[in-house]
Amino acid sequence: MKSTMQDAPLTVTDILRRGERVFPDSEVITFQGERSRHTRFGDVAARIPRLASALERLGVRQGERVGTLCWNHQEHLEAYFAVSCMGSVLHTLNLRLPPPQLAQIVNHAGDKVVIVDASLAPLLAAIRPHLSTVEKIVVVGDGDVSALGDTLKYEELLASGAPVFDWPVLDERSAAAMCYTTGTTGDPKGVVYSHRSIYLHSYAIWGSFRVDDKERVLVIVPMFHVNAWGVPYTAWMVGADILLPDRFLQPEGICKFIETERPTFSGGVPTIFTGMLAYLRANGGDVSSLKRAVCGGSAVPASLISAFKEQLGIELIQGWGMTETSPIGTLGLPPKGTAPEDEMHYRSKTGRTVPGVELRVVDENGVEVPRDGVAVGEIEVRGPWITASYYNASAPEKFHDGWLRTGDVGNIDERGFVQITDRSKDVIKSGGEWISSVELENLLVAHPAVADAAVVGVPDERWGERPLAAVVLKPGTSASPDELRAFLAEKVARWWLPERWAFVSELPKTSVGKQDKKLIRAQYAEGKIPVVELAAAPR
Amino acid sequence: MKSTMQDAPLTVTDILRRGERVFPDSEVITFQGERSRHTRFGDVAARIPRLASALERLGVRQGERVGTLCWNHQEHLEAYFAVSCMGSVLHTLNLRLPPPQLAQIVNHAGDKVVIVDASLAPLLAAIRPHLSTVEKIVVVGDGDVSALGDTLKYEELLASGAPVFDWPVLDERSAAAMCYTTGTTGDPKGVVYSHRSIYLHSYAIWGSFRVDDKERVLVIVPMFHVNAWGVPYTAWMVGADILLPDRFLQPEGICKFIETERPTFSGGVPTIFTGMLAYLRANGGDVSSLKRAVCGGSAVPASLISAFKEQLGIELIQGWGMTETSPIGTLGLPPKGTAPEDEMHYRSKTGRTVPGVELRVVDENGVEVPRDGVAVGEIEVRGPWITASYYNASAPEKFHDGWLRTGDVGNIDERGFVQITDRSKDVIKSGGEWISSVELENLLVAHPAVADAAVVGVPDERWGERPLAAVVLKPGTSASPDELRAFLAEKVARWWLPERWAFVSELPKTSVGKQDKKLIRAQYAEGKIPVVELAAAPR
Repeated sequence: MKSTMQDAPLTVTDILRRGERVFPDSEVITFQGERSRHTRFGDVAARIPRLASALERLGVRQGERVGTLCWNHQEHLEAYFAVSCMGSVLHTLNLRLPPPQLAQIVNHAGDKVVIVDASLAPLLAAIRPHLSTVEKIVVVGDGDVSALGDTLKYEELLASGAPVFDWPVLDERSAAAMCYTTGTTGDPKGVVYSHRSIYLHSYAIWGSFRVDDKERVLVIVPMFHVNAWGVPYTAWMVGADILLPDRFLQPEGICKFIETERPTFSGGVPTIFTGMLAYLRANGGDVSSLKRAVCGGSAVPASLISAFKEQLGIELIQGWGMTETSPIGTLGLPPKGTAPEDEMHYRSKTGRTVPGVELRVVDENGVEVPRDGVAVGEIEVRGPWITASYYNASAPEKFHDGWLRTGDVGNIDERGFVQITDRSKDVIKSGGEWISSVELENLLVAHPAVADAAVVGVPDERWGERPLAAVVLKPGTSASPDELRAFLAEKVARWWLPERWAFVSELPKTSVGKQDKKLIRAQYAEGKIPVVELAAAPR
Repeated sequence: MKSTMQDAPLTVTDILRRGERVFPDSEVITFQGERSRHTRFGDVAARIPRLASALERLGVRQGERVGTLCWNHQEHLEAYFAVSCMGSVLHTLNLRLPPPQLAQIVNHAGDKVVIVDASLAPLLAAIRPHLSTVEKIVVVGDGDVSALGDTLKYEELLASGAPVFDWPVLDERSAAAMCYTTGTTGDPKGVVYSHRSIYLHSYAIWGSFRVDDKERVLVIVPMFHVNAWGVPYTAWMVGADILLPDRFLQPEGICKFIETERPTFSGGVPTIFTGMLAYLRANGGDVSSLKRAVCGGSAVPASLISAFKEQLGIELIQGWGMTETSPIGTLGLPPKGTAPEDEMHYRSKTGRTVPGVELRVVDENGVEVPRDGVAVGEIEVRGPWITASYYNASAPEKFHDGWLRTGDVGNIDERGFVQITDRSKDVIKSGGEWISSVELENLLVAHPAVADAAVVGVPDERWGERPLAAVVLKPGTSASPDELRAFLAEKVARWWLPERWAFVSELPKTSVGKQDKKLIRAQYAEGKIPVVELAAAPR
């Protein structure tokens, strides 16, 4: 039996129309280093049909890709809506990728037009000769872009566009946007988001973070990275002011932007917030407007969550997700009835799924492990904003019976709380038992002298693998391997304690700010990291 | 271009599974007059496959209808999930309908099984001979049900069911539940909700009311009325405790339930909350746990919103919707930047749409009126949980170009704030101009002596129509027509002021507690209402 309900498609166009018609006075605020540019939603919305019609005149058709190589700013947001709502596909390009990988991605997606920041023109110019599908380049802002050859100016393009665009009625399952994984394990792979998945994900962000038109949302996470976690769509949908820091992503810039524009909510990777905390300790600053921030991309140390709460009065909410999951999957929020002294136990976990996402943990045979908070296996997820494949790439090993294999390893308890203990590729298996690198890292960064830490598995004759701890000390502090090991010994099993210690000035990070453990292992194998080796702790 | 996203259907089954797996310890609490019955979600969920498998054994197939004639209690919630998730259609029956209409609805829907409360057996027995499709009757609770002939006991049925049910993978557009309109304008008509519409509506309730697992939700609105506004689904999805008052819907019962079980959030029609307020004034009681309640079904007087805030500390949020809209359409929440003294201006409006619903106001030619807060027309809505038709009934006059014609008349401003001034069938057109009955009523109930008021249009030789004000005075108070008219004269145009006044002990209400203006007009026409007629105010 069919329902009598309207067959209203879930599209980005609905989100666009809502922000335009219900919240014309909300603002998009772009930081410019010292002051900010303020534009009303109504005025931003008036520019979007102009961009769409101009792109159409350039020959961009439904289903064709438009790349963006941009920081977080108003024009990037305009492209988000114009490209998707005209039925074309927004392809956000990660400006931190190595140029050869960037060229490979543009070609693989078949981008027809690329919109680029003038400040990023040198990066695009370096790969321009290798781009086989790009017909037009549109430049946002001013600067010397002669190295790019023929280009169009964004503002002139808009001026040439029509003030009205007859937005097409779209199939909600058609492509709206795409983003490539960062390819830490092999070639980058494209994930294509649908109108439906973006719409539903926007609802999930709305419900999970309770964002409404009273909030001012600071989008620190780059708009080239999984659509800035979908936050711009949600903010536009509910009329929250959207604060975009452009390229000013260093702690000083972020703190200054917060001080002057007073956001209430934000989202970013732990590295950003760690940097902010250090900056504020050293230089002071007023970030009191900020009440809550979601933090994800890699495990969030309990010590960072505590420091934010106690020193800044900011609730840092741990989130987990990936490019393949749009990205929101779980949130580390304590369940009802949690005593204050147990709060951190839950906040430092990977968390529970948001409505819409189903999650299970399976063993090596694909069988669900007990939900007891102990049994460990690979995490699999499914739901309407989880990918089922990659764009023009076969990867059957990433999927299992309709579920996405996340590559994350962890446990789940009877109330659905998940704790990720490792990436499956970073798992340390020592003497037949697993050691959680994530847990050791979180403990290490809680030591007063430790600024950052990575634990990786390295070959060991006797145990197969043993953990190597690579540590960055805070300026002006010191700590010996013995001291750090003793610090850990109070908290974990003896046989987890690393014998191998390295003190480094910096840990290698991937293009989206995650620890590059593959590189650390390679550097160790090549003898490029000076390692202190302690005697093994008695088992 | 297709996306790479999973094609995960949006179904009630997902909601069921989530509550079961993530929130096993949340509670369903059913009031029993003095004490309450507490059951964990986990234990409720364990009974649902039993009900589904037993219904299947009774011969209920996918797409077939199961009626429920029940108050708000745990078993009704079990039926909500079991019937929809097995692919059959839950048909909630309004126990306040006149028996002939009830019989007509059961037959029109073709209910195969009816689940009925023992206390409601007499009502069902009265129409049993006229029910042509009902094969089995299942009785919840104890009582003399011999008048019903052969029946099955709910608990015995469950005991006969299997502990596991292999929930089918359903088309998200298939029917999950249905509800008939109350038919104040003609025969009741069936609205059929899909899995998709219920799922999306649950998200909208989640986002709009920020309900999470820390809340205890008191479901006052009957579960036979538009799925209790969808609140039970949302509460189950997010793990909020669900408090069900069973048949104890009088102010005393509700207040006692609140005092003992301490809900934080609720929803109901203005009549319920007006009654609660009067009861608490007279008898006292502790309702301090309750922080927020959504109120809708008919216009919410500003005086009620103020009294709840000031006397009880409860935020009463005005909502608008109808059976055809699942029901949530708009919410009366002030926009950002509202000064405290302007709060009530927005709270007493019909409000802005929630995300997912689009709304426009059109004139008699179907052309959108200016969004200036002044121009008046009929309100039309569209979206994924708005009906596009009625079940096996033709009603082309209710639809317009893909939009639902709501039958409500009002204006909209440039920020999307809607003010409903009348039902189109209740519109008062006097000397070619519209008079808002809703505004006059809201002003009247703000008078200290007025308990309730209805304003209807009655024939007038000179002006075509004039307003008649029917007023219920509070016990122990008095007010003359002159005095009430003077009270109104400070606030509205002179020509709005009614000449005709009636003082009555009670206003007729429909089966879902709305004013029955059709009946008031009929009573006036038949001379059954004593009317005082004042001289016309000078225009």
